[in-house]
Amino acid sequence: MPTITAFERSPDGGRGLARDTRVRWALEETGRAYEVRLVSFAAMKQPEHLALHPFGQIPTYEEGDVALFETGAIVLHIAERHAGLLPDHPAARSRAITWMFAALNTVEPPILEREQAPYVVGDRPWRAELLPLLDGRVRARLTQLSARLGEAEWLDGAFSAGDLMMVSVLQRLKSSAVLKEFPTLAAYVARGEARPAYARAFAAQWKVNARQPSG
Amino acid sequence: MPTITAFERSPDGGRGLARDTRVRWALEETGRAYEVRLVSFAAMKQPEHLALHPFGQIPTYEEGDVALFETGAIVLHIAERHAGLLPDHPAARSRAITWMFAALNTVEPPILEREQAPYVVGDRPWRAELLPLLDGRVRARLTQLSARLGEAEWLDGAFSAGDLMMVSVLQRLKSSAVLKEFPTLAAYVARGEARPAYARAFAAQWKVNARQPSG
Repeated sequence: MPTITAFERSPDGGRGLARDTRVRWALEETGRAYEVRLVSFAAMKQPEHLALHPFGQIPTYEEGDVALFETGAIVLHIAERHAGLLPDHPAARSRAITWMFAALNTVEPPILEREQAPYVVGDRPWRAELLPLLDGRVRARLTQLSARLGEAEWLDGAFSAGDLMMVSVLQRLKSSAVLKEFPTLAAYVARGEARPAYARAFAAQWKVNARQPSG
Repeated sequence: MPTITAFERSPDGGRGLARDTRVRWALEETGRAYEVRLVSFAAMKQPEHLALHPFGQIPTYEEGDVALFETGAIVLHIAERHAGLLPDHPAARSRAITWMFAALNTVEPPILEREQAPYVVGDRPWRAELLPLLDGRVRARLTQLSARLGEAEWLDGAFSAGDLMMVSVLQRLKSSAVLKEFPTLAAYVARGEARPAYARAFAAQWKVNARQPSG
């Protein structure tokens, strides 16, 4: 049984945005049991955890002689070995993996840039000028993504690891006004969240974070 | 034989930073011939190209019934099908793929954020305050990466698709003072560029961009 790491206390207070949720979701979609080791912020910066994750983050994935970090790599590792997240046809399989990379390398960076900007710039007076510029970069990507998705249920036929990753990335915008400008993308996120495997993953991370008063 | 797309006229004037170089490099490492279709900036935004690449960028990869975008997905597709870019042992193979995702989702985003910031903020007076903050974010990642690389030649034993992607990402910093603060990472980039396959990939893209006066 694989062991993953997760925050001892998630900064989002259990809203499911910590990246262990993506891995839990992939494990649930493929019907796999797993164990969780909780890691404190202090422990994440210690040599023992850095040996497992050189960037001092969660999640990690350990199973037998396999030890991985990076959500994309972990989800792909699971998807390649267990049915439920990648189509059988080789060309469709490569397209699903393409959407995983698109989520992580094309759509997520402007979203995280915008999300983190308030922490990066602090209370500098020009913060109010910067944030709309960054919203514009997010909007540009969502415009392209919604044009491709159209009225389809998923990005390329059946639900895949590509959708799992894209929905997870877009979830970060749920508290932002920008996602509301794209109703088909908001509905796409809701479809992902309605999957029973997602509900189980969410509940599992919620249980961890509800054990303690949130900050 | 696969066909990839590249800029008709690369914005970097042939320095090899356009993303087709990554794909050319992977094809060269695996000894594969390929064809190139050049695309103008205007054509990249047209429906025909958007059908192939929903975000209107290059490179794309077409071979038989396979049509892909996203450099990470293309390089992985090549690496999984041809010897030379992934180790045989399953655990080592998953680690190499982990480094591909780390390059694209953890190391590249702060580098691109810093690189693009001058274009995003234009000549607003606070630009000079923002850029050092973004340099700090790049520096934080490079500190962690150089701690992991140490004095090793490559990230995890033999050269892999993970190194190909990480070197390509770090190359974007060659004109930045930040990379010079990390001599082992600068040497790592130089080792990547010294590979004969990289030299062939670089020469091929240079030939395209040297055909015309650079802007």
